[in-house]
Amino acid sequence: MRATIFVTLKADVLDPQGKAIQRAAASLGYRDVAQVRQGKLFEVTLDAPDRAAAERLLREMGEKLLSNPVIEDYRIDRIEDAKPTAR
Amino acid sequence: MRATIFVTLKADVLDPQGKAIQRAAASLGYRDVAQVRQGKLFEVTLDAPDRAAAERLLREMGEKLLSNPVIEDYRIDRIEDAKPTAR
Repeated sequence: MRATIFVTLKADVLDPQGKAIQRAAASLGYRDVAQVRQGKLFEVTLDAPDRAAAERLLREMGEKLLSNPVIEDYRIDRIEDAKPTAR
Repeated sequence: MRATIFVTLKADVLDPQGKAIQRAAASLGYRDVAQVRQGKLFEVTLDAPDRAAAERLLREMGEKLLSNPVIEDYRIDRIEDAKPTAR
């Protein structure tokens, strides 16, 4: 199965990287860009017997491995059935 | 308006960071995680007269500012009407 996990800074945490991107955009002429917040995404391919097991595994990964729960939130996006591909 | 832009490595580009996360997951006991690919996301708040103008601006930003089109793809996710918030 495949899923995407989004990790974003909590709303009250400053994001200097996003601010820098917003300024870079303004200096390139995109003055209508009011705010940019940067986050991470993880495309995860996993073997799981069913959707519930996949979601359980993804939640654990989101909490324990991929995000810092003090300053970040995570969100699991659409779990899709797909054979894992070797890479 | 608000939108999210996803920037991901093209499928044929190696992702050592994602590989490291997959190995870290395995060493934590998550052996069913077959593959992880890491990408970036940008939550953009912008002033635009309409959806078409917003999409045009977001496409330009995705191409020229936020992604490296040689190795990365970008995708614009759901443009929502929302007042820009000062920060």
